[in-house]
Amino acid sequence: MYQRLRLITLATCLAMPASAAATVERWGVYEVSLSGPSGGNPFLDVRLGAHFRFGNRVVDVDGFYDGEGVYRIRFMPDEPGNWTYATSSNVPALDGKSGGVTAVAPSAANHGPVRVRYTTHFGYEDRSPYTPIGTTCYAWIHQGDRLEEQTLETLRSAPFNKMRMCVFPKSYQYNNNEPVYYPFERDSAGKNDVTRFNPKFFQHLEKRVRDLRALGIEADLILFHPYDRWGFASMPPEANDRYLRYTVARLAAYRNVWWSLANEYDLVKTKTMADWDRFFRIVEESDPYQHLRSIHHSVVMYDHSKPWVTHVSIQGSDLEKAREYVAAYRKPVIYDECKYEGNIPKRWGNISARELVRRFWVGTVSGAYVGHGETYLDPNDILWWSKGGVLRGESPQRIAFLRKILETAPAEGLNNLSTYYLGAGQESRYYLFYFDVNQPAEYEFDLGKGSQYRADLIDPWEMTITPVPGSFAGKFTMKLPGKPFLAVRFQKVAAP
Amino acid sequence: MYQRLRLITLATCLAMPASAAATVERWGVYEVSLSGPSGGNPFLDVRLGAHFRFGNRVVDVDGFYDGEGVYRIRFMPDEPGNWTYATSSNVPALDGKSGGVTAVAPSAANHGPVRVRYTTHFGYEDRSPYTPIGTTCYAWIHQGDRLEEQTLETLRSAPFNKMRMCVFPKSYQYNNNEPVYYPFERDSAGKNDVTRFNPKFFQHLEKRVRDLRALGIEADLILFHPYDRWGFASMPPEANDRYLRYTVARLAAYRNVWWSLANEYDLVKTKTMADWDRFFRIVEESDPYQHLRSIHHSVVMYDHSKPWVTHVSIQGSDLEKAREYVAAYRKPVIYDECKYEGNIPKRWGNISARELVRRFWVGTVSGAYVGHGETYLDPNDILWWSKGGVLRGESPQRIAFLRKILETAPAEGLNNLSTYYLGAGQESRYYLFYFDVNQPAEYEFDLGKGSQYRADLIDPWEMTITPVPGSFAGKFTMKLPGKPFLAVRFQKVAAP
Repeated sequence: MYQRLRLITLATCLAMPASAAATVERWGVYEVSLSGPSGGNPFLDVRLGAHFRFGNRVVDVDGFYDGEGVYRIRFMPDEPGNWTYATSSNVPALDGKSGGVTAVAPSAANHGPVRVRYTTHFGYEDRSPYTPIGTTCYAWIHQGDRLEEQTLETLRSAPFNKMRMCVFPKSYQYNNNEPVYYPFERDSAGKNDVTRFNPKFFQHLEKRVRDLRALGIEADLILFHPYDRWGFASMPPEANDRYLRYTVARLAAYRNVWWSLANEYDLVKTKTMADWDRFFRIVEESDPYQHLRSIHHSVVMYDHSKPWVTHVSIQGSDLEKAREYVAAYRKPVIYDECKYEGNIPKRWGNISARELVRRFWVGTVSGAYVGHGETYLDPNDILWWSKGGVLRGESPQRIAFLRKILETAPAEGLNNLSTYYLGAGQESRYYLFYFDVNQPAEYEFDLGKGSQYRADLIDPWEMTITPVPGSFAGKFTMKLPGKPFLAVRFQKVAAP
Repeated sequence: MYQRLRLITLATCLAMPASAAATVERWGVYEVSLSGPSGGNPFLDVRLGAHFRFGNRVVDVDGFYDGEGVYRIRFMPDEPGNWTYATSSNVPALDGKSGGVTAVAPSAANHGPVRVRYTTHFGYEDRSPYTPIGTTCYAWIHQGDRLEEQTLETLRSAPFNKMRMCVFPKSYQYNNNEPVYYPFERDSAGKNDVTRFNPKFFQHLEKRVRDLRALGIEADLILFHPYDRWGFASMPPEANDRYLRYTVARLAAYRNVWWSLANEYDLVKTKTMADWDRFFRIVEESDPYQHLRSIHHSVVMYDHSKPWVTHVSIQGSDLEKAREYVAAYRKPVIYDECKYEGNIPKRWGNISARELVRRFWVGTVSGAYVGHGETYLDPNDILWWSKGGVLRGESPQRIAFLRKILETAPAEGLNNLSTYYLGAGQESRYYLFYFDVNQPAEYEFDLGKGSQYRADLIDPWEMTITPVPGSFAGKFTMKLPGKPFLAVRFQKVAAP
């Protein structure tokens, strides 16, 4: 049915001469590049896709126009071995092109995309553990290379492995600069032609997604948001749908992409709930790799029980409530915004580092995940939460401390197991209690029968882990320091 | 209609010879003492009351049997001038006795009973302000004189002007001692005769109520509670009703008495909601002075909108919720239990002093009142919250600091006026903002038009009040220290 032709191929993870047999890492990006028409409006006129095959399995992938007569199809193989493909298009020059690529073992830092695992937790597709420790820099990719590279440099030594970031530029308090790139062609009056994407905008976005990937950071891409003065929040429905398909076609092959349908979707007054449902379905139908999908609210919560929502993205200050969300939705729960460390006048942007660290711990032992943000006043309005730059707060090092603890916890995740004092873990194996504002001088733990545990007293602010002498089992009373905001960890040492 | 006879009278506030014309302070206790039968069961057999008259006004007062053939009628005059009375009884020796007493101006510290004022606040009957700053020593009157006197000594320099205390003794963790007095006669096996009150028990209770009155402390008497091993929580209905009438007859004339129908009423499994409603009505119908009435819950809130509830007694940790209670009930709201400063293993008894102080402030600027309690482990199980003794915590001095601030605030009370950051006050006159975990480095206040204010920066923990230079009006931005848990106060200085 399809003709096999020699094509220009580019595997972005492995540089290789075009003449050699194409290879690509498993979960890397294999790109097919084709020349085609540049006249008319290729974004509207040209349809392009490819069927990638592995044995009898077929994966349908959409291509996209990248400007200057170049069309691309990006593919992320999820199985090692030989894949073949054939294109289909309404343009003869792009139709029926075929080829093959061999997916090889991934490099050490490549664990594949993140998936939901153990119902309410996450893990990489290669089964290695993934515990989201996110941060937020909504508009960091719209700040110009100098600041963007500083942000990347900061991230290199920061504890974060997920970045919440907007595709569209942002117009908001402390966010008055124009972006370097616009997503659509604009006329001299600044009017968007929403039928013509700006490939440079998306190439830049992709570069930053790759930069994050190189740092081991998931890019939680926010597809719509209300902070807009350019018209991106109020495009007609067909433009929104086309934008989603184009963005998915361009970016889905990057293994570190997550789709966040919106930030504060309920503040986007131009869209209805039916729109949001449709957007979810478009993303779900277009994405060959089924990256994680969520949506974030301000006041009115989206119904996260809808089947296309893979995990629950929460805005809220009451982290204990995570227990209810986990119980109600049976999906992973991430508090992507629990307010930010900082000192701006806004209530959402000035909690203390101690309070943010407290919220991370309360959320963790409630069985959820918590995200960071930082909003310190700056003479140049460079606030991390939006533009990136440098981190000035006292919470990141404590979040790094928590991350280390979580990375030595069971890969199955921490489930809330105790609500009297918040405790989470895996029964008979591991328990982490957090005492929050409570400061008992002693406490009777009941770890159940069947396991012996060693215990550590943890001070999340001082970042100390102090082994408690002895071995523990069943019911026992432990002396505690009578100070608030401490944690106690129990790890199984031996079968009885 | 009534014969006037010379009687033995006793004004507990003014020592005077029996032969002189009887006087009593306004809102003092005037007591008529009569000799009557001691045979049979006077508690069941004898009915005694008096009509007190002031001009054409009549106040009906119940008498009570005080043992050893002595019957008493206690009266609290609320108007200065000449009162007369005549008794009525089914026993001829007690019937038709009459006399008169002159109510004179109260002494300096006597402001009368506390009343609801300005819908959601309190004040003394003489119109002087009263801001409840309560503490809890549930069973302090059952500990023997030595410890009870130590408690009184502690209260002398403590900031509290309300004491939550049980009438019945308490059986609970850290509360295993027998009381000195029992409310009913008991046989050698410890079985109560609930038809026979023990006057010594009530005389002791009254002594302690007078001790508190002398310290300017309201006695918030808890009439029922679930912490019981003697049977007082499971008496038959007629015994409960008789106990209420007897207690009201004995104690209502003390101006500093409040009626708390129960602590954690919903844990008293022997009583139904209809019982609680009936108890409220019995107290309301029996009390000539209409002292304040409330009821305290554990999990299931009583319907505080019922007309006999004068104010809302809350158990809870979320002090911001006070705004909803104030709005819903349009009655004063007191968080009588927002958890206690301490270090016991129980979650309700080990919050830090900082957290308790924080809750006092959040409650205050939410338009409510907050109560204190202290639960530090003690080798002799003497925990303030139940037995009294000494205070060891760090919150009382900060509560004293808050009390001083409130005593210079408008007598009309602090109404929640701002919810973005919690702020309370009286419009155009006084504002108190509390920033809680938020630490803005600057904030734009909007105090409305029409008044000029002076401002103070308040550190509730460090107990400092720092005037902010300048005069403030309308909308303005104020620099703040960028530290959490601070407050700002604005006081009107001049009309524009």
